[in-house]
Amino acid sequence: MNYKMIFYIMGQILKVLAFFLLMPILVGLIYHEKHVFSSFGIPFSITFLLGFFLTFKKPKDNAVFSMEGFVSVAASWIAMSVIGALPFVISGEIPHYPDALFETVSGFTTTGSSILSDVESMSRACLFWRSFTHWLGGMGVLMFVLAIMSSNDSRTMHMMRAECAGPNVGRLVSKSSFSARILYCIYTGLSLAEVILLLAGGMPLFDAVIHTCSSAGTGGFSMWGDSIGHYNSVYFEMVIAVFIILFGVNFNLYYYLLIRKFSLVYKNEELRTYLGVIAGATIVITANIAHMYNSIGEAFRRAFFMVASTITSTGFATVDTDTWPKFTQTLLVLLMFVGACAGSTGGGLKVARIIIIIKTGIKELKYIVSPRAVATVKMDGKPVEKDVVRGACNYLIIFIMLMCTSLLLLSFDKYSIEEAMSAVITCMNNIGFGLRRFGSAGNFSGLSSFSKIVLSFDMLLGRLEIYPLILLFGIRRR
Amino acid sequence: MNYKMIFYIMGQILKVLAFFLLMPILVGLIYHEKHVFSSFGIPFSITFLLGFFLTFKKPKDNAVFSMEGFVSVAASWIAMSVIGALPFVISGEIPHYPDALFETVSGFTTTGSSILSDVESMSRACLFWRSFTHWLGGMGVLMFVLAIMSSNDSRTMHMMRAECAGPNVGRLVSKSSFSARILYCIYTGLSLAEVILLLAGGMPLFDAVIHTCSSAGTGGFSMWGDSIGHYNSVYFEMVIAVFIILFGVNFNLYYYLLIRKFSLVYKNEELRTYLGVIAGATIVITANIAHMYNSIGEAFRRAFFMVASTITSTGFATVDTDTWPKFTQTLLVLLMFVGACAGSTGGGLKVARIIIIIKTGIKELKYIVSPRAVATVKMDGKPVEKDVVRGACNYLIIFIMLMCTSLLLLSFDKYSIEEAMSAVITCMNNIGFGLRRFGSAGNFSGLSSFSKIVLSFDMLLGRLEIYPLILLFGIRRR
Repeated sequence: MNYKMIFYIMGQILKVLAFFLLMPILVGLIYHEKHVFSSFGIPFSITFLLGFFLTFKKPKDNAVFSMEGFVSVAASWIAMSVIGALPFVISGEIPHYPDALFETVSGFTTTGSSILSDVESMSRACLFWRSFTHWLGGMGVLMFVLAIMSSNDSRTMHMMRAECAGPNVGRLVSKSSFSARILYCIYTGLSLAEVILLLAGGMPLFDAVIHTCSSAGTGGFSMWGDSIGHYNSVYFEMVIAVFIILFGVNFNLYYYLLIRKFSLVYKNEELRTYLGVIAGATIVITANIAHMYNSIGEAFRRAFFMVASTITSTGFATVDTDTWPKFTQTLLVLLMFVGACAGSTGGGLKVARIIIIIKTGIKELKYIVSPRAVATVKMDGKPVEKDVVRGACNYLIIFIMLMCTSLLLLSFDKYSIEEAMSAVITCMNNIGFGLRRFGSAGNFSGLSSFSKIVLSFDMLLGRLEIYPLILLFGIRRR
Repeated sequence: MNYKMIFYIMGQILKVLAFFLLMPILVGLIYHEKHVFSSFGIPFSITFLLGFFLTFKKPKDNAVFSMEGFVSVAASWIAMSVIGALPFVISGEIPHYPDALFETVSGFTTTGSSILSDVESMSRACLFWRSFTHWLGGMGVLMFVLAIMSSNDSRTMHMMRAECAGPNVGRLVSKSSFSARILYCIYTGLSLAEVILLLAGGMPLFDAVIHTCSSAGTGGFSMWGDSIGHYNSVYFEMVIAVFIILFGVNFNLYYYLLIRKFSLVYKNEELRTYLGVIAGATIVITANIAHMYNSIGEAFRRAFFMVASTITSTGFATVDTDTWPKFTQTLLVLLMFVGACAGSTGGGLKVARIIIIIKTGIKELKYIVSPRAVATVKMDGKPVEKDVVRGACNYLIIFIMLMCTSLLLLSFDKYSIEEAMSAVITCMNNIGFGLRRFGSAGNFSGLSSFSKIVLSFDMLLGRLEIYPLILLFGIRRR
């Protein structure tokens, strides 16, 4: 293990984080919030100095393999969360550190679960920082470091693999720093488009930026207690729903669109399934809730927004889903597990992985009927490599094992097994809201500090797709 | 597909079922319950005539392959359940047919979930039949047919494979009819031993037979509303707990004991894990509930009984587990999934499968660290065949897919998602009680007929380990 290089990479990431900590200070200056000099200035100084010292000397041996990639990503995400929580504590807006940590991890992992019961009383600078963590976490901070680094070392690919979600990641172009730059350009472009469309509909600039950050990362933090429902505007809901669906698409496909490889996009099985599931679920839920609303149109509006918010694991809400029929609620819980596409900012198990898992199940059934028939799992018309199939199925297995462990740890808290399960599911899939007490109308403030730390860890597990963290804490000395 | 042979096998099974339907008539005669002539006589006549006609002519082509084996087992189990429910309806003790069907399926599949709210008012003949279905279902009726058939056709193995639980089944001896005979002898021997020990403790003969049938099949039907807790006797509880643990062991191991191959038993990894988990869970739960009881001894007694009852998926109760700490409750829910050993009468996913699944997860983690390292899943010190590993993992995947489907179907009922989940888990794992409303102190009578039929199907899926039923209903015409 090349520890020097791991610390060097962490230093790079901390320097970038320090830069980003300047932005809420700017917001605070605009809105005359003087506390920002201490609440964001102190974390900025710590982060910058740490980053400066860690990157003072580049190690001679700059070899980065899969192991180093995973470990530095995991360590960086933890460091970012620990530091990112400081402004909330220093400003006194979230005085209790485990609460602030939970909120920050929830932000960076784009989960969107909150321990705040009165979000509207927060300062503008903190509100901005809270949503901005979604934007940063969505595409990944390490990806940003790769984008600005001029490295043409193909081995940095290992790091991209660790931070990027989904069963496998294909490089767009031969240089990973160039890939990262393209991805961040697309990400920024889409975000700008959303801000402009929201402004065009009459949303104030600050609100538009906040909600764009939260949709871009498919996170779900809002500046209002009643989330997007606050505006009660069909236009805003449709713009946001469409954009979170767009942010849930594999970003590689946007690159293919840019270089006019339309057939690759059209043939993409994951995209078709993703859009098909959204359409199907919207129709079924519209039919199921139609009797609760004045018109089919209104039922469709509610259903479409909640399906988009749930499958992409965003967690924005326009209604309290606990009032909906149980069939719809069950369907939404299942959609939480499905999640968005691989290589997007969305959470969950990812559509591609679900496709592979379901096809593996069907293949197994075929095998039982006639063991001699050779069946292969296909995707986009081509056979999927055995390693990818095995990886997807085993990911589910490890996911379930960790879910059971978390459930046991949460059972020490005062909540029921069902509520604990709901909290674990929402955190590990990076959704943002569960059922009942943790539903779209509730929050996580009642949990014990221990439970909050367990759930923070679960959110990181979900966002980094388990392996980096396991490797960080389970490193065997060799 | 050799349909003639499938009907012939079904006929054989129905003839055996007819024979077994005579036994409750005998019980009725002893206790002067005259209704047995109609309530059991009519189903007996139907079953016997049907069996007689179906087996009138043995098909010339008696080839039975895996497909035929699976399909005839699935069809027979459904036929047995449909007929086995009739006595309850005719006697008027369970007037509503879907209720009677649920109760009978719950019996044959050794689930032990009940829709009865007042079991103690039942006639002796019906009580006996209800528990006797557990005994029959435990080892399997087809296994009995194989045991009495003089066939020396090695292809009947395909049928044994369909009815026997676990990731793989090894034949004890070269002839499957001889294997089946050995297994039934061991099964009967163990059952007799339990009856004798219960009698020795002073339990009335009828009670001893009822509770032995229910423990042998690891089913859980009792003749008392408060289950084994009714006797409030340490002796009875310990005898029953030890016997359900014994019935949860792979029966092949008893054969190895008989032929003095002790090392095979001693080295058996599944057995060690099974006993280890029971010991571990009992210690942890004893510690967790100790403050609720007067002495450590009493806490141990309660914990040991409930652990045995839960891991073997029996479902006998001596306490209302909803009053226990949530950590213990969560642990018990996880034990429900683990289940007993492969090749036993217990339910759940089976210990062997869990071992393989967990080892696969660990192997995957090792692979992530160093993709070049060749890791194999080992059991009993030997590498497990790839097909078995794949099968175990894919079984879990298909299991989860079916669980989600059932959950959606149950969401049309009036219960909450959490209660529906609890009901699905308990039925698919053939446990007998879930949490809250379906807990050890509740029953399933409040469900709609539709939900009862869905859950009946889930119980059959769990008992026959999914594939036979899928093949029966998903046969593609070729």
